Amino acid sequence: MFAIAPALGKANLSASQLKLLAGKARWIFRVCEAGFPTIPTIAITRAAWDELQAERGRRDIRLRTHWVACLFKLVDKDGKPPMLVVRTSAASHNGGLMPARIGIPAPAAPEDAVDPGRPLARAIKQAFESYGFSGRTWTGGRQEDDRARQIVLVQAVAEGAVEQFLTRNAATGALGPAPLNGGPLPRLPEGVNALIALLDAKAGRHMSCLVAVKDGQVQFMSARSVQASAGAELEAAVDRVERRIWTPHSAVSRVDANRLALMLHPRLKSSEGVSPIAMGLGVSPGAASGIIVFNAEDAARLRARGKHCILVVNETGPADIEGMKAATGILTARGGMSSHAGVIARITGKPCVAGVRNLSVDAAEMVCHIGDREFRAGDRLTIDGTDGAVYLGTLPLAQPQIGGAIGKLLGWSDASRDIAVRTNAETMESVQTALSFGAEGVGLARSEHMFFSPERMVALRRMILSEDEDARSRAIAGLVDYQTGDYSALFASMKGLPVNVRLFDPPLHEFLPRTDEEIEEAAASLGVAVRALRMRLERIAEINPMLGHRGVRLAITYPEILQMQMQAVLAGARAASEKQSEPVAVEVMVPFVSTASEVSWVRERAMAILDNSGLTRSERVRFSFGTMLELPRACLRAGDIAAMVDFISFGTNDLTQTTFGISRDDAPTFLAAYQRKGVYERDPFVTIDEKGVGEMIEIAIARGRAANPRLKIGICGEHAGDPASLKFFAGLGIDYVSCSPYRVPIARLTLAQASA
Amino acid sequence: MFAIAPALGKANLSASQLKLLAGKARWIFRVCEAGFPTIPTIAITRAAWDELQAERGRRDIRLRTHWVACLFKLVDKDGKPPMLVVRTSAASHNGGLMPARIGIPAPAAPEDAVDPGRPLARAIKQAFESYGFSGRTWTGGRQEDDRARQIVLVQAVAEGAVEQFLTRNAATGALGPAPLNGGPLPRLPEGVNALIALLDAKAGRHMSCLVAVKDGQVQFMSARSVQASAGAELEAAVDRVERRIWTPHSAVSRVDANRLALMLHPRLKSSEGVSPIAMGLGVSPGAASGIIVFNAEDAARLRARGKHCILVVNETGPADIEGMKAATGILTARGGMSSHAGVIARITGKPCVAGVRNLSVDAAEMVCHIGDREFRAGDRLTIDGTDGAVYLGTLPLAQPQIGGAIGKLLGWSDASRDIAVRTNAETMESVQTALSFGAEGVGLARSEHMFFSPERMVALRRMILSEDEDARSRAIAGLVDYQTGDYSALFASMKGLPVNVRLFDPPLHEFLPRTDEEIEEAAASLGVAVRALRMRLERIAEINPMLGHRGVRLAITYPEILQMQMQAVLAGARAASEKQSEPVAVEVMVPFVSTASEVSWVRERAMAILDNSGLTRSERVRFSFGTMLELPRACLRAGDIAAMVDFISFGTNDLTQTTFGISRDDAPTFLAAYQRKGVYERDPFVTIDEKGVGEMIEIAIARGRAANPRLKIGICGEHAGDPASLKFFAGLGIDYVSCSPYRVPIARLTLAQASA
Repeated sequence: MFAIAPALGKANLSASQLKLLAGKARWIFRVCEAGFPTIPTIAITRAAWDELQAERGRRDIRLRTHWVACLFKLVDKDGKPPMLVVRTSAASHNGGLMPARIGIPAPAAPEDAVDPGRPLARAIKQAFESYGFSGRTWTGGRQEDDRARQIVLVQAVAEGAVEQFLTRNAATGALGPAPLNGGPLPRLPEGVNALIALLDAKAGRHMSCLVAVKDGQVQFMSARSVQASAGAELEAAVDRVERRIWTPHSAVSRVDANRLALMLHPRLKSSEGVSPIAMGLGVSPGAASGIIVFNAEDAARLRARGKHCILVVNETGPADIEGMKAATGILTARGGMSSHAGVIARITGKPCVAGVRNLSVDAAEMVCHIGDREFRAGDRLTIDGTDGAVYLGTLPLAQPQIGGAIGKLLGWSDASRDIAVRTNAETMESVQTALSFGAEGVGLARSEHMFFSPERMVALRRMILSEDEDARSRAIAGLVDYQTGDYSALFASMKGLPVNVRLFDPPLHEFLPRTDEEIEEAAASLGVAVRALRMRLERIAEINPMLGHRGVRLAITYPEILQMQMQAVLAGARAASEKQSEPVAVEVMVPFVSTASEVSWVRERAMAILDNSGLTRSERVRFSFGTMLELPRACLRAGDIAAMVDFISFGTNDLTQTTFGISRDDAPTFLAAYQRKGVYERDPFVTIDEKGVGEMIEIAIARGRAANPRLKIGICGEHAGDPASLKFFAGLGIDYVSCSPYRVPIARLTLAQASA
Repeated sequence: MFAIAPALGKANLSASQLKLLAGKARWIFRVCEAGFPTIPTIAITRAAWDELQAERGRRDIRLRTHWVACLFKLVDKDGKPPMLVVRTSAASHNGGLMPARIGIPAPAAPEDAVDPGRPLARAIKQAFESYGFSGRTWTGGRQEDDRARQIVLVQAVAEGAVEQFLTRNAATGALGPAPLNGGPLPRLPEGVNALIALLDAKAGRHMSCLVAVKDGQVQFMSARSVQASAGAELEAAVDRVERRIWTPHSAVSRVDANRLALMLHPRLKSSEGVSPIAMGLGVSPGAASGIIVFNAEDAARLRARGKHCILVVNETGPADIEGMKAATGILTARGGMSSHAGVIARITGKPCVAGVRNLSVDAAEMVCHIGDREFRAGDRLTIDGTDGAVYLGTLPLAQPQIGGAIGKLLGWSDASRDIAVRTNAETMESVQTALSFGAEGVGLARSEHMFFSPERMVALRRMILSEDEDARSRAIAGLVDYQTGDYSALFASMKGLPVNVRLFDPPLHEFLPRTDEEIEEAAASLGVAVRALRMRLERIAEINPMLGHRGVRLAITYPEILQMQMQAVLAGARAASEKQSEPVAVEVMVPFVSTASEVSWVRERAMAILDNSGLTRSERVRFSFGTMLELPRACLRAGDIAAMVDFISFGTNDLTQTTFGISRDDAPTFLAAYQRKGVYERDPFVTIDEKGVGEMIEIAIARGRAANPRLKIGICGEHAGDPASLKFFAGLGIDYVSCSPYRVPIARLTLAQASA
């Protein structure tokens, strides 16, 4: 028990007392210490209170005497004991805490100061009791320890009007008194600004502030921090740097990257007071509101009229791509993170909720059900692809603000970052977004994604469905031109920044027709009989396509695909290099290898094609060759592999799937139960599993660097956009990460924080 | 150049000369050395020959003088130079070698002995040239080295009749002169038996022997080893032990386990002169001949009449199980090693060739095509499930001979083996086979395989298809009785040997109806509407079932299944323990874990069920709990896991799939190309990949033992039946391996060889 704001003079706290100052107590002491008029306040810890009570049983009064002396510190120079207020002072605000108990008479006798039957001691006892054990998961010894340090404040009752306000605007972050919870701003004297500046500098957060105003004079009563919007916090952080309260470095380290993420997609203004009608998997972030449609034509029609729509389907396939592009958001009954819907939605930047178990769609009848509710075309829904929630009707959305403050903060962050941030992108649109967000290269251009348009799909399907090498070579010939143009545009737009092209790695089933109607259409466009197409489809169907004929396995079994891709990449690089002053930096990456022999097989052929291209003799194109490590065996054999490549890049999505033996698409059936039952703490597809997948990566890096000290190392799985994972990656000694365009700012910020 | 059998006296070779004795030279020297009359023979190495020729260029005669002196060693005491024979003496026989050149006159002058224009030197030159570089893949320095050591023999021409015979019968292994290649046995004097005994003891192999017989006297000319049948080699080995030529230990170490494997299934007597009409994947070993059938009824009908049949289908499903049981062999157009056909075939011990790409079956029309050929029910085929070959018509088969010799050899092998051999089995039939082959326990009883009969399948499907816990619990109730009886019989048959029961790990898709007809049938038997069943099937369909909702994930999401299984296992153990004197040794194993938290979750519940059973207080049942390590993450976290279990068992099939990222079912599309192009040396699903999967296992063993020194460690993947893999496993310090029943003898032999 001690005074943190004595009525006379200043508090002079010991180091151990200073350590006890949690919550409001901290700010009352700081403001008083800085010389701002402050309502007299004393603090008592639970440990002290318990000891005071124990002393009563022993009929001792040593501690009570000290306590009464403390209470006298609330007495002003007029010598009259004031009426008292009892407040909690929790480290974090909590609904169950006792509200301030106001107007308690000062104890008439020393015994009254500790007798729980008397008003003051009763209020203190109740305040401590209101702390309970809630609010945090205390563990082990700390629980008792923290409990002993809980504080209750006893203040003199203030004279004059009590006013409450925020130190900064909750929406804009602007400094100065701001209204609380949308209420009116109280009239406050000029003097309050000094208090605000003081508190903002000391706390570095939005504060809710309580003052007493009398005769134009302000007396500080108490303050606690409040959570402002991500945007307001960011603006405030930048403002503090500009006011020289913070260094740029402190601003960078104090902004929460997870909250920054919320600003980079359209989002729900607030979901308070509305409950989702269903939950699925948030597979592509951002929120979208719109009219329900069940097919591409309706989506296109609405889009043409400038209306937002949500495409609602059981699952998506190649036939739905146009509909997905036209829709504002996508909602599916089946599928997960790497379902067709998820992949396309993330590429196109559309919010998507997938795998809503109680959704069933009858597209033919243009009706869907979510649980018992029936929805028809024209009804409205809002989806939140960040958390997977589905809401009834149209909820208000906030658009992403990539304004001045975020730019400044990220600019500062770049100064203290030594790991490059690239992006996973292949379309011009996504590359431009990523560049505007500060991407320093393309870390993963998924070459097969360049075929996501109806006319190209025909050529691609023709190739996939080829029965023999001749047919495949003919199909391939039709693909080179598209690709050359795409690569040329991609390289040109990156103006000399490195572009990593991953060789063809199609999850075949995503490119193939599925429904009877699609098969008939595909047969017509391919010029084959429906029956023949069906037989071929059946023949190439895979039981576990994730572990099937893909990645480097395609390049080795069908070397003509490798040949075509290398030629297109090199022709694109040549074309781009002729139009710009910077040399084109091309990286070709072989996916899904499990042995060094696969790497050497592809390398030998790729290098022969490069040598024949004549580009090796040019200074205009810088070519490097590498591989993607996304299988446990590749990690173990990284030493052999590293000796043959310029770079390796970890594909953490597939590495997580194979290390855990979990298909991400099929995981929703048990992952929810796992988290509910506490078997997994975190979804390993969201935050990297440090103890398993992380160790695989560490083994690979150690062996790779030992074999090839000049090896460049990157991470290109989706974990590269997750702050917790990025912190882990930052400690691995890697050269770059590559994430989706909207995640580039998060990676820039988190890596700066981690390297600080 | 030196005499290995001089006409007078004995050869007295230096150590370096002894080292040069390869092929026939070795046997000629040994026989002569042992005092058996031998045709005079001298040997010249290529190095010596080359030097002789080089000397001619230098007009030197030092070496030539030595050579001529050597040639004089062929001269008998009559002093007359004999006519000569020039032979090669390759370490391994090879079709391209020069046949013996007979009747060459002895050189008339010293110069003639080295002049390639003269008959002797010409024959020697041609003999060296015929070695070429063929026959082996020589690598690096050894190539030149081995070449320099090639030998050519110069012999005196024998007088009398030249006769050829084998030292042991090629089919039975019986000692004594035996005919070669099915020809008649020449008349041989009694004296030949001493030579045969001598050679058999020296070579320890079947030898093809050349002698000259004159006046009832035998002179040894030359011999080379020949490959006899696996059975004959085995009989010979045992015979040598019984004749005290070999120790049991030498017999064990000299029998080739791979060849032993050929004896344990029906096999083709010979495939010489017949070409397969198609090749598929040999997924269940052994050969089978029979009449083609397309459905279970026809198979059953033929079986009832005692006829063999081959079930030919596109792929098998639950509806085909009865047909598979009735058929002698199974041939499918689709699927691989772990396809339904492969799994069931191996369990039931039926030869099976799967994934024959150019086979198409029209079951309704009762016709199939292999390439251009058409086959109808009643036509005959022979399949070889060991190598995947399909032959026209009925080829003669040899039945497995588990006779006295194999029993003796394996008995000896057990003495020098310290790793136990268990079996993967759950049916009474396979357990009995395994016991008769010497299995020392069950290392993997796949509990879900106990449902492979039509009436049980209904109950199992009802459980899999349950919509909620209530429905599932009802379905489960119907399963307990079956299981209790099965476990009781299983434990009883093992008479106290350990039985490892793996908790339910169904690859769901194998148990579910697929075709329209099967779905209709299943709906009827389950009492649900076809449409509802279809919707449910669609909902639980998985994209990558291998990485889906299986193993421990089922136990955690549906704890009622765990409860049912534990109760059935414990009830079965109690029942068995009441009928026998030995305590029942039960091991319960949790499959497909990737985290220690999964193990602890299941362990806690399993132990609670055990405690409630009262069996812990009984001495009649010994219970242990463990887990299967078959995912890379589980291997990395083996330390955490080992602390909670009594044993771990490596599931090398799934561990290979996940470490490589290869679905074994889908691998055939690229694995053949990989082997053809030299990317993989060996199929990692046949022989353990030591550098990748092997390291995972080593990491896990090191971490597991460190955390729990009393940890019991086993291997239960199919690699545990492969000799090359077993040699690797033997070095890991494991306690047991568990393989399919027919592989038990191979494991016993290989592990004995490895620990010697």
